[in-house]
Amino acid sequence: MNEKEKQFPFLRACHRQPTPYTPIWLMRQAGRYMKEYRALRKKYSFLAMCKTPEMAAQVTLQPLKHFKLDAAIIFSDILIPLEPMGVEFEFAKGEGPVFHRPVREMKDVERLKIIEPEEETPFLMEAIRIVRRELGGKVPLIGFSGAPFTLASYIIEGGYSKQYIFTKGMMYQDRPTWDALMEKLSRVLVHYLNAQVRAGVQALQIFDSWVGCLSPADYEEYVLPFSKKVIKGLDRSVPVIHFGTSTSTLLPMMKKAGGDVIGVDWRLDLGEAWARLGYHVAIQGNLDPVVLMGPVDRIRREVKRILDQAGGRPGHIFNLGHGILPGTPVENVGALVDMVHEYSSMMKQGKGERLR
Amino acid sequence: MNEKEKQFPFLRACHRQPTPYTPIWLMRQAGRYMKEYRALRKKYSFLAMCKTPEMAAQVTLQPLKHFKLDAAIIFSDILIPLEPMGVEFEFAKGEGPVFHRPVREMKDVERLKIIEPEEETPFLMEAIRIVRRELGGKVPLIGFSGAPFTLASYIIEGGYSKQYIFTKGMMYQDRPTWDALMEKLSRVLVHYLNAQVRAGVQALQIFDSWVGCLSPADYEEYVLPFSKKVIKGLDRSVPVIHFGTSTSTLLPMMKKAGGDVIGVDWRLDLGEAWARLGYHVAIQGNLDPVVLMGPVDRIRREVKRILDQAGGRPGHIFNLGHGILPGTPVENVGALVDMVHEYSSMMKQGKGERLR
Repeated sequence: MNEKEKQFPFLRACHRQPTPYTPIWLMRQAGRYMKEYRALRKKYSFLAMCKTPEMAAQVTLQPLKHFKLDAAIIFSDILIPLEPMGVEFEFAKGEGPVFHRPVREMKDVERLKIIEPEEETPFLMEAIRIVRRELGGKVPLIGFSGAPFTLASYIIEGGYSKQYIFTKGMMYQDRPTWDALMEKLSRVLVHYLNAQVRAGVQALQIFDSWVGCLSPADYEEYVLPFSKKVIKGLDRSVPVIHFGTSTSTLLPMMKKAGGDVIGVDWRLDLGEAWARLGYHVAIQGNLDPVVLMGPVDRIRREVKRILDQAGGRPGHIFNLGHGILPGTPVENVGALVDMVHEYSSMMKQGKGERLR
Repeated sequence: MNEKEKQFPFLRACHRQPTPYTPIWLMRQAGRYMKEYRALRKKYSFLAMCKTPEMAAQVTLQPLKHFKLDAAIIFSDILIPLEPMGVEFEFAKGEGPVFHRPVREMKDVERLKIIEPEEETPFLMEAIRIVRRELGGKVPLIGFSGAPFTLASYIIEGGYSKQYIFTKGMMYQDRPTWDALMEKLSRVLVHYLNAQVRAGVQALQIFDSWVGCLSPADYEEYVLPFSKKVIKGLDRSVPVIHFGTSTSTLLPMMKKAGGDVIGVDWRLDLGEAWARLGYHVAIQGNLDPVVLMGPVDRIRREVKRILDQAGGRPGHIFNLGHGILPGTPVENVGALVDMVHEYSSMMKQGKGERLR
């Protein structure tokens, strides 16, 4: 980090350094809730937008023009590295991603390629470079990927799943294939994330969005070794945020995986989560995205509750517990960002109780 | 309870009395994994089977013929009381229930009827009477319903949901409608469950299957008062099991709702769950249903782990963490039941370590 970067509240919070207010960014802050985004999506597919550097850069910057967010996150998708690995998918209307040839056996794993991200996802690296240039040092830029488990679950199930029968089935019934797949995904993710750092991102987030379907014992046995390996392989000149949902019983092990920041959802109180993790990791979260749909006085109540739970301790990054929902009123997003800044800066000056 | 009923290990465990082995039953133990069941389902719809007393009774008894289960559960569905309340639904192929006119406003709630279960779901009461007769006191029979939240979520969303946007939206944006709906559902559920007791069930389970989507604060504010009211209104000559999934952070409040037994899923260790609840409630759970798909040595390992966590303490009822999956090999179910009986009876005789 250079001297200027050291002053960004978001990066300082990742390293648990004091900040004048609690920094905030929002998962899917560039998304369908914004008019500008919807206008582009009418003309281009989601994947076309991800793969066109100028467009991805433009979309990344859209929310920054309207809201005082403390970080940008590159517009992309966790599934992007899978296509060059040889796992094709499409976004079926209203259904999320569909993989027509799911990975179920060793021979499926064997045909997966270890990618060279600069060559095979150059559009992402170029988008990162454009955004860094355009941002001109205003706020830091976050790069990201899925975690090995969440990506494995998509390609094994063939899409989003409720019960993860095939994913857990592979764990329990065909350990060598599971290990080979997780190993390959882990290697790809290390390359892919480090390439983003080389291109210019100043922090990384690893999304293990669906890992909460596992028992703690299964997480420890089948997932932790690989998540740990990914994080260990990263260029740690940038902080790493490790995020999942429904992870309340997995937190002690997610901490062992080694990220600087653990992202949590609304299913547990942020105060309890942090106490359980211990205060030598930073924490990110945890407003329920449905709360952001309104009304505003309800949002205010929750913001206050979450910030009170964090207690003004250095190392809290405000975020939702999952991505912004498409129908969220755009004015609520602005209101949230301002509330978090206002209330947390009053708290940090010892005036928290004055804001009602 | 009469003298004979007092000896049933399942009922004794509900009351935390010592038993010679850990009793076991399985959610959806009458279901698609069984050949006899599939044969009937080829000829009749799921709802027709629920609504024909002889058939519902027959299906209830099928698993008891094959496995040494410690309880029967009446074959029915949590949605059954909704139709006479005036909320129509159908089971769309592969999609679960679909409600074409979701309940979203006060006027929708106002048109819901408070049902008289003996008159409006007589088939269920008749099925219960037949099963009790046929069982001849072999094992106790469990009756059940959905919990107010889970039923509300179905009729507000119009089916199964990933994000519960409309359900939480009603909570946050239209509290009077939410309260009126939950109040009405609670009244119906008290009637409906007590009618099952009058018809002959010897225990009750309340399924709050989807409540784990809520934050602890929202559970406390919007759900707990109603779940408590339902349980308080029940004929407590029979024990009440209160079940949910993804509830690790909600357990202290589920305990406050007042059930005799708390049902937990595999997302937390049973030992930790019980410690968190305190040992003056019984606990039910918590094998991951995917584990039951095999292999058998994996099932054995998990059975041992769960029983070791329960520590032979009176008040553990073995079950899955959710319903049996349709593709489960039937022989695994028999193997599970026998393993639980065998290992737990050795444990209770102080010989746990001998079983490998």
